[in-house]
Amino acid sequence: MTELKNDSYLRALLKQPVDYTPVWMMRQAGRYLPEYREVRSQAGDFMSLCRNPELACEVTLQPLRRFPLDAAILFSDILTIPDAMGLGLYFSAGEGPRFERPIESAKQVEQLPIPDPEGELGYVMDAVRTIRRELKGEVPLIGFSGSPWTLATYMVEGGTTKSFSKIKAMAFSQPQVMHQLLDKLADSVTSYLNAQVAAGAQSLMIFDTWGGVLSERDYLEFSLRYMQKIVSGLTREADGRRVPVTLFTKNGGQWLEHIAATGCDALGLDWTTNLDDARRRVGDKVALQGNMDPSMLYAPISRIEQEVDALLARYGEGSGHVFNLGHGIHPDVNPEHAGAFIESVHSLSKKYHK
Amino acid sequence: MTELKNDSYLRALLKQPVDYTPVWMMRQAGRYLPEYREVRSQAGDFMSLCRNPELACEVTLQPLRRFPLDAAILFSDILTIPDAMGLGLYFSAGEGPRFERPIESAKQVEQLPIPDPEGELGYVMDAVRTIRRELKGEVPLIGFSGSPWTLATYMVEGGTTKSFSKIKAMAFSQPQVMHQLLDKLADSVTSYLNAQVAAGAQSLMIFDTWGGVLSERDYLEFSLRYMQKIVSGLTREADGRRVPVTLFTKNGGQWLEHIAATGCDALGLDWTTNLDDARRRVGDKVALQGNMDPSMLYAPISRIEQEVDALLARYGEGSGHVFNLGHGIHPDVNPEHAGAFIESVHSLSKKYHK
Repeated sequence: MTELKNDSYLRALLKQPVDYTPVWMMRQAGRYLPEYREVRSQAGDFMSLCRNPELACEVTLQPLRRFPLDAAILFSDILTIPDAMGLGLYFSAGEGPRFERPIESAKQVEQLPIPDPEGELGYVMDAVRTIRRELKGEVPLIGFSGSPWTLATYMVEGGTTKSFSKIKAMAFSQPQVMHQLLDKLADSVTSYLNAQVAAGAQSLMIFDTWGGVLSERDYLEFSLRYMQKIVSGLTREADGRRVPVTLFTKNGGQWLEHIAATGCDALGLDWTTNLDDARRRVGDKVALQGNMDPSMLYAPISRIEQEVDALLARYGEGSGHVFNLGHGIHPDVNPEHAGAFIESVHSLSKKYHK
Repeated sequence: MTELKNDSYLRALLKQPVDYTPVWMMRQAGRYLPEYREVRSQAGDFMSLCRNPELACEVTLQPLRRFPLDAAILFSDILTIPDAMGLGLYFSAGEGPRFERPIESAKQVEQLPIPDPEGELGYVMDAVRTIRRELKGEVPLIGFSGSPWTLATYMVEGGTTKSFSKIKAMAFSQPQVMHQLLDKLADSVTSYLNAQVAAGAQSLMIFDTWGGVLSERDYLEFSLRYMQKIVSGLTREADGRRVPVTLFTKNGGQWLEHIAATGCDALGLDWTTNLDDARRRVGDKVALQGNMDPSMLYAPISRIEQEVDALLARYGEGSGHVFNLGHGIHPDVNPEHAGAFIESVHSLSKKYHK
């Protein structure tokens, strides 16, 4: 394997000294880039793009050609696992992801297979291998998965939801069925992420988009418990380097101490939590990733720079901060604003790393 | 005015002794009740029901005939104010509320009128007067409004949104226009709520459904500041009694200390915050309302009772707690489960009030 030319992202996650605060953007390969929309329209539907390792590699690299990002992230979808379990993922216009065969019974849960990462999910590993090769050691490659709870919400609701009625009815009325589903998902995510590391991923992130719709007790029982199980089962070294794991629960700002206690290396933060408060609360346990409101990229560039400066000041001196948006970049953001954001993180952060 | 027969709700909000923990449910007059659906279908569309004081009174009273609730809440919509400002509210099937003429320019904001509560909004005051009369002093009547920020999100986005892109673009790029809009809304809400008190409301609640999509700094600047302005301008006494004010920011669990400092009497809590932590954080400053996950009503009755017991234990001994769901009751809940929930709050809470 080639030596990494820029390892600031990995170093910051491990709280090792860096020259500047590294930065990447959730959904940095995405619709706000015209070159992405071009490839996306060639590929046909969204899943065809995910299933084509060359095209997935191409869109993964696109933002790195434009901006001096400090990490690449695998282009894929969080719902590849349920799809590989046989639920039939499709994307309907305006409605987002849907499943043809959502989970409706205990029997279905019992019969769910644990997908083989190099079998049904082999296209993801092929994409990881292709991207890692094409990155030529420029920056590290992040692999990822959805959290068991988040995957389960889509599998039980059949798609996106506002009320989470079906999954909560299952959690509160048939907790044993819920736990069986979550346990299978934890095993599936563990082998999926370990296969991504074997294929070349140098860092891992688990997206718990919907853990924040639970009470603390239910979050610990139905979401964090299974992320903890995954963290405990992950390969944490590759090419002689630690593979850092970042957990991100959107709207999880009230539970940072619990998340930090799982043994993960870093916490992703949305913008509702102050970076300084978060740093104080988790102490030296973990690094922090975040947390500018993605809508700030609609503001004039001078305002974006002012915001970057304010967030850097909130984190303060020393390593342990990876700059990011608090959620994915919006599709209607001007790419020039994204570029100015990234440049300003690099230039304005140097004073905090002396 | 007739003496109140059951004032436990008002007493709990003021932390005065009560015999049991009072309870009501957000959206207690609503689609989960067959008798509501019956009146709703007679009325035609949703706004026709809101605009008809007799029918609004009828649906307000329906849940009180079924359940021993400790408060009634005016049946209305939070978007009556923007509608009265001339934006043209309508409800499209599956899409929720929409405005025909959303706010798109600084000029529109400048020209927005402050509605006359006894003029364009007279139908709301007529409903308050009718309900208060028909309640015959059984339980107190709660009046309400949306918060300025929450109303502004619908006015600028033109309806519901997941990303809040337009309103945040306005907040971050044209803060002076945003503040002008919020200030007009704060003045409108103040006169609207004061008129509700004059018409007979005995308690007030401000729903800040979307304050939780902001960072703390932006929440303080764009949402809480205007709720604070309203609280300072409200009539706090009627019929020789204090009119308690409850502020509810959904997903505002990280900012309870700030909300408690506005001078309100109580905080509404969603289910993501622990009642015991919240009580510790706000001390004796305010009462707390909440906070069972509304989806718990899908569970078997024995599970609901267990949850009520657990939440009562979390709050602990003494007054200052009004039991409620952490958000509105879901339309597909079995009314028998709602009834069991209310009964169990009454019976299980007595031991905490000795």
